[in-house]
Formats: sequence, structure tokens, C-alpha cells
Amino acid sequence: MSKGLPKRSENYSEWYNELVKRADLAENSAVRGCMVIKPYGFSIWEKMQRALDDMFKETGHTNAYFPLFVPKSLFEAEEKNAEGFAKECAVVTHYRLKSDPNNPGKLMVDPEAKLEEELVVRPTSEAIIWNTYKNWIQSHRDLPILINQWANVVRWEMRTRMFLRTAEFLWQEGHTAHATEKEAMDETKQMLDVYATFVEEWMSVPVIKGFKTANERFAGAEETLCIEAMMQDGKALQAGTSHFLGQNFAKAFDVKFQNKEGKLEHVWGTSWGVSTRLMGALIMAHSDDLGLVLPPKLAPIHVVIVPIYKGDEDLEAIKAVIMPIVKELKSLGITVKFDDNDAYRPGWKFAEYELKGVPLRMAVGMRDLQNGVIELARRDTLTKETRPIEGIATYIKDLLDEIQTAIYQKALNFRQENMFKVDTWAAFEEQIEKGGFLLCHWDGTSETEEKIKELTKATIRCIPLDAVEEEGVCVYSGKPSSKRVVFARAY
Amino acid sequence: MSKGLPKRSENYSEWYNELVKRADLAENSAVRGCMVIKPYGFSIWEKMQRALDDMFKETGHTNAYFPLFVPKSLFEAEEKNAEGFAKECAVVTHYRLKSDPNNPGKLMVDPEAKLEEELVVRPTSEAIIWNTYKNWIQSHRDLPILINQWANVVRWEMRTRMFLRTAEFLWQEGHTAHATEKEAMDETKQMLDVYATFVEEWMSVPVIKGFKTANERFAGAEETLCIEAMMQDGKALQAGTSHFLGQNFAKAFDVKFQNKEGKLEHVWGTSWGVSTRLMGALIMAHSDDLGLVLPPKLAPIHVVIVPIYKGDEDLEAIKAVIMPIVKELKSLGITVKFDDNDAYRPGWKFAEYELKGVPLRMAVGMRDLQNGVIELARRDTLTKETRPIEGIATYIKDLLDEIQTAIYQKALNFRQENMFKVDTWAAFEEQIEKGGFLLCHWDGTSETEEKIKELTKATIRCIPLDAVEEEGVCVYSGKPSSKRVVFARAY
Repeated sequence: MSKGLPKRSENYSEWYNELVKRADLAENSAVRGCMVIKPYGFSIWEKMQRALDDMFKETGHTNAYFPLFVPKSLFEAEEKNAEGFAKECAVVTHYRLKSDPNNPGKLMVDPEAKLEEELVVRPTSEAIIWNTYKNWIQSHRDLPILINQWANVVRWEMRTRMFLRTAEFLWQEGHTAHATEKEAMDETKQMLDVYATFVEEWMSVPVIKGFKTANERFAGAEETLCIEAMMQDGKALQAGTSHFLGQNFAKAFDVKFQNKEGKLEHVWGTSWGVSTRLMGALIMAHSDDLGLVLPPKLAPIHVVIVPIYKGDEDLEAIKAVIMPIVKELKSLGITVKFDDNDAYRPGWKFAEYELKGVPLRMAVGMRDLQNGVIELARRDTLTKETRPIEGIATYIKDLLDEIQTAIYQKALNFRQENMFKVDTWAAFEEQIEKGGFLLCHWDGTSETEEKIKELTKATIRCIPLDAVEEEGVCVYSGKPSSKRVVFARAY
Repeated sequence: MSKGLPKRSENYSEWYNELVKRADLAENSAVRGCMVIKPYGFSIWEKMQRALDDMFKETGHTNAYFPLFVPKSLFEAEEKNAEGFAKECAVVTHYRLKSDPNNPGKLMVDPEAKLEEELVVRPTSEAIIWNTYKNWIQSHRDLPILINQWANVVRWEMRTRMFLRTAEFLWQEGHTAHATEKEAMDETKQMLDVYATFVEEWMSVPVIKGFKTANERFAGAEETLCIEAMMQDGKALQAGTSHFLGQNFAKAFDVKFQNKEGKLEHVWGTSWGVSTRLMGALIMAHSDDLGLVLPPKLAPIHVVIVPIYKGDEDLEAIKAVIMPIVKELKSLGITVKFDDNDAYRPGWKFAEYELKGVPLRMAVGMRDLQNGVIELARRDTLTKETRPIEGIATYIKDLLDEIQTAIYQKALNFRQENMFKVDTWAAFEEQIEKGGFLLCHWDGTSETEEKIKELTKATIRCIPLDAVEEEGVCVYSGKPSSKRVVFARAY
């Protein structure tokens, strides 16, 4: 009945890969490192997009669209950003194919159609956008600029995994320009909060908000803020980042404005993004050995109704009772699927919808009808209950809210059980093998951070925004430290 | 007051280019042939997307996402399709840049990071999608597949114009697979009807539905259906196409299914798309020398309210009366902007919102308040009326519907005045210079079609679906013909 998914406890990585495929979320494509997002997976992504987009608009942002290509000369303008992305970018060098004279029916790059300047397929759009903002900004009256873009980007990663790390991925990237440092920093934090709210309230995944260390910062940023989530194997997943760019891009692209006093100043910038990687986080945070577990707010189908019947007469009797309930559920904003496809048996359907993570399953047989009840099964807890048909729609509506919260609480409990204050190197080495987040003192140097990574594959996920000041000594070097940071192995 | 737009009558093309820029719809970017879609323009496109997406879903389609890149070997698999797009495609040949040893601070393509197989940036996705469908289809139970994708595509056009023809553009592309020829043809027609409904009811642009001739068909299709619209200069614009692909792609990618009788058959396919080109159609169909004219269903702002006042006291008095109306309008689903920005004078604002095509402008001064009236100006007719404040919200709601229809009717009248039955070559040559759609008999040969294009730049826009059978002779060759086709110059 489990459709033969590998077990999480035996091979977490294989379990993930198989689940992604069998639940019809995505599959690998003919293009190295690029995935196909299948309809069921895409419908979850669409719900994420809609919710995020609404939140961006509520905070004053508008959408726009900038070119896919970045001319090499713009790409290299902000040095650190260029350095960070040059080693993994797709480069367009020609604009035509022609018939290959040596291979009938085949095509070849036309050497006469070489571009004067190579075009980089955007790995991120700061360069092309700041080059555009230059023309949009003259005065303080033109600020702030608060723009978001939904787009595809390409980073030529060598080791890819569906949703978590793919050569092409879908994301949104916000790019804002401000008159003051404070405004830009406030925006950076505001958008981190938007991400945290979305991931916790919609995805039911608790996150830790914090600063990245210099080593882990976005190439070209002065500060990178992030939200970090814990997966069921105890590893961390960076779920979103919000960058304070300082005046780096403004200087690289010569973007100045006349302030209220009439003086020319460089503009302050931010950028922030979340991607289809969130799908990976959603899957890995909640799902089990039977398949997906989806929080109701992101589930494409909230309730599946499986009639259990022998002939057309039974089916009609069930429909007569159930269809008004379907209608009532829909009027409450609940998405319902009534599955009377007789090519499959109820048991097969139960497994299938468990695999797909449908939050509630309603089974209705003839005896249930006579008794005025139905059987309701929760996907998250795998519990069943028999409920009176009377008032079932409003009961389901409340139950879906309860499930949304329960899934969050379960993930939060798991995280709390897997966060450890670790104060000695021996304890660090032992715990990191078991997984989880290690709250440790760190001496603040890149050297120590790199050494720890080399020895244990653990990185500093973040310096939590709410870290309390406390005296301590670095878990590795023994040098003094004033607050704990989060170490973990990560996706 | 017209913000110095060129006049349509003097230079239609310049008028269009300037309008696109000054109304903040789009601008050229640093990348040859690629545009930046600015927030105001993008918000119109978003409304188009939302409406179309709803219509696709109502007709049973779901969204998915396929890779940006097409490996050369897949690209060339369907010969005619490859031939049609090879001459204008962007080709990725490398996956890394490195520091240029001869130019400090500059980057160069790393010759060691050459791809084994070149990747074409998708000009359209039939190849990559049919290669995927091959794995999804075994049995008749897997059919139909009804998928749409919202994406960017790249065609390396040499002469580009914002929205109308750009190297990169945004579009949706539907790709469906069916068990029978009839089902595929029904789908092709259904999606053409969806497009026609959208363009007529949302964009207020009347269209002619028809078949393309063999010359104008999509590369790889058996039949291309299209909708053609008339712009204000009498030229045609192809607003959407729906292709019956026959079994061409199924054969090229070996996509077969077992039918109900257990026999293997090739699948039948369709594809259909509309793009940001629709923005060009929207602009050119309705706008005037003062700026955009937007049908209310696609207008980002429905009503702008401009208070006319001397000091804060006046403004407060106006607000006290107007803000409840704003609230009421919003509750009716109407988007309102109350513009009390005192950096600009009312006259400037009037011109600005005319330029931006806001359907209704409400001006409110102190004397109006005393009289319990406001002034309402319609963008489409440039007429003004004084209305009682009492009941203004519901009046506006009805008026917006009226405007939606009026704009359509005006465009329809214009088209009817500019469609001509032409029966002699002399009349053809004379009329084509004046513009409009020429309804003519044609002998059905590509030869004649090409000759007419060569002589007059006119092409056959379509063979209308509703063309009546009538005996006649070809306007050019004098050979017999049984129905009239539509000739025009086109964008």
C-alpha cells in the first residue's frame, strides 16, 4: 500500500527522490540538471506564488520583468557578484543554427552567427536591474523603488537534486532601491519577516531568522539575512534570503540621486528571493513513508471522497447524499474531489491519495449512509473517526484549520527535540553525526568556521536575530564569544 | 497637455513607440531586442494572465513547467519545426566564465567549459515537451494530456519592436495530446474560441477567426488557426494561434499509445499560444493622441479621483465626503486611486492619467461639494458630465461596463468601415495603400500568395472560418475560387 517508497529511516535521500517522482511532483528532464515540474507539483507551487505575491503587494511592491540575458560587460561590473556566479553560468555565444553539411538532417552552430558580446543567462538579476534603475533614478522623489520579478534563473550546479538544487529553477527576486541606509535595512528585515510568516503560516514549517556569516553571504551583499528550517533528518535547509546590498550595486552601476538637500548620493539597495527550493522544504519537513503530508493551505485538493459501492444503484444513493455536501464544502472555499473512477479499487485510491498528501479522506459506504455517518481519515495523523453526516462540512472546515496548526506544531516539536546546546568539541563531533541544530559559541573568525566545516561538514546556518548575549568560549578554538550561533549540516 | 506624443495621423509607428515608453509600459534594455516590462505595463499583463489562466483551467487544463533549454538533438528531431526556428535561436555553448588574463577585472568564456551538446534557448517548447510526453503516455487511459505553461521564450529576431516583436517575450503555450484526430482538432478549435472570447470580451478588440494558409502555418503543424485583429492604421495583427499538429511530433518523438482495442497508435497533438504581443494589440487598437485607452477589465486603475483644493482645510472637507465613496467603490471591486499628491497641479494630473488610460477621472472641487456633485470624465470618449454624489458608486460601476462595451463597439465599427470586398487587381493595389482588410478571391496557390506579397507587402491573414461559399475569380490570377480570404499588411 505504500507504493513501495523507500523508508526514511533506511535511506532518507532515496525516499525523497522517489517521493518527488511517485507523487507526481517533478521528474528529471533530458537537460542535465533541469527538472520538469509536473502538474500536481506545479499546482502547489502556484499556491505558494499566489500567497507570496499577495504579501509582496500588501507591502507595497509591484511586479515587473527584466531580460533573461545579462551582457558580459554588465555581468562583470559588480566584482564580487561576478566572481560568485561566473563559475557556474550558462553562456549564449551564438544566435543561429544551420544545417550540418557533414551530417544530413542534423544542425550545427553557425560560426558566422557569433555574438559580438556573450550573454549570460541570468543566475540572478542584480546586474541587469541596477543597470536599468540607473535611468529611473534622478531624485529622492524617484525613491524608493519596490519591484519584484517572478522568473527562471540558471546556475550550472554540478550536483543537482530535484527542487533542492537544479540548474534552472523558478523563483521570485525582489530588488529595491532606497534613499537611506536605514530604509534599505528596514526593507531587508521586513522581507525576511514576510518570508518567515509565509513559511510558518502557509507551509507549517518553523524557521529561525538570522544573519549569515561573511563566508555564507550572497556575493555582492553587505549582509545576508536568512530563514533556516530543520528537515526530518535533522539537516538544515535555507528557505529564503534577504540581502542588504549597501551601495555596492549603486556604485558598480553609478546609480545616484539628488537628496532633499540637493546633494548627489549613491542609492542603497536590497534584494531578496525564495525559489522552487521551498517545494523541497515542504516535502522534507512533513512527509512520511506513505507519501506527502501537505498543510491544507497549500494542498491542491483538501478532501477526497471515495464512495464504496457495488453497483450503479449504490453509487446513485451515495451521490444523492454526498453531492450536496460537496457543494457546501466548495462554497466554504474547500477543494473537493469525488473519485468514482471504477477502474481502481478503494484500497488503491486510499494509498494513492495518501501518497499525494490529500489532508482529508472521506469514505462513504452503504451501511454508513443508513447510519447517517461517514468515515473521515486524517493524512497527517493517519487517524480515522466516524462522524455524523449532519454538519460535516463545517466540521471539515474547522478540522482543516486544526490540521494546518497540528502539522506546524509537530514540526516545531521535532525541531525543539533536535536543537542542542553544545559546549565541547567532543560533544560537537558526537552530536553532529546524529543530526540536528547545534547551538554553540563561536569565536567569530572565518578560519574557525572553515575548519569546523572541513572536519564535520557542518556550517554556520545563521547567527539568530534573537540570540541572547551570554559569555562563553568557542566550541572549537576556546576563544571568548558572546552569543551562540546555529551549526548544522545543510542541504 | 498631450505630453508631446507624436500624432497617429503623422507617424503611427513613432506614436506607438513613444506611447509605450511614456505611459510606463516598457522600455528597451541593454540586451539587443529585449525589453524591460515596467510595473504599469506588467500590471496589465498580469490581468491578462489571470483571466486567460482562469479560462484555461475552466476548460480542463493544468499548468506545468518544462526546461528553458532544448538539447540540439531534440531540437532537430521534428524537421520542419527545427528548420523554422534554427535560423533565429540563442545557443548556449559554455557553462562558465573565468578571469581574462589579458584584461584585469574582465571575464571571458572558459574554453574548458564547453558543453558536449549545445543547448538551444527554447523558441517554443514542442520538442522538449513531446520528448517528455513519450514517458507519460502508454495507454489510452493516459490521454488526453491537457497542459499549459507560462514561460519566456527567445527568438533572435533582427528587427524588433516593443511588445510586437522582441527577442525574448513572455507567453503561454498549451501542449495537448489526444487519442484521436477529431479530439485534437476539437481542442484546437476550442482554444481558438477561448482566445477569441478573451480578446473580444477583455481586450475589447474584435477578431476574425480563420485558418492560416500553408505559407503562414506554424513550423511543424498540419493546420494553424488564428485570430486576426485590425489596428487603427488598418494593418492586421495576429493575436493568437492554435495549431493542430497531427501526428508530426508524436512521430518525431515516437509517442505511441495502446488504444482500446489494444493496438499501438501515434498520439495526436495540439499547441496554442498568446504572448505579450497582446499588449501591442491592446495599445494599438484603442489608444489616441493623448495616450492609452484601456478597457476597464484590464485597467490597473479604474477611477482616479483628483481633488481640487487650496489648503489643508479644503482637502479635509473633500476627503470627508470622498473617502466613503472610495470605500464603497472598492467594495464593488473597483480599483480607485485618490491622488492628493501636491507636488503636481490638477492639470498635470489630468494629462498624466489620460496618458495612462485610466477609464474614469473624478474631479472634486469645493463648489462641487457645496452643490453635492462631482465631475466625471470618460477617457474613451473624452466627455465630461456633472453627476450627483448621491449614488455615484453604483453609477460608476455601470458606467465601467458601458465603457468596456463602447470601446469594443468603436473598434468593431472601425473594422467594419475598413473591410472591403475587392474584386480587381487595380482596386487591390489602390486599396492596400490606404490600409484595411481586403476580402478577395484567391486561387489557393502559394505562388499567387507570394507574388501578391512581393508586389504589395500584403499577406493572407486568414481564410475565415465563417467564409461563405461563393463563386468568384482570384483577384490576381483570375483563376476560379470558391470563397474570399482576408488580405492585409500586418505587424
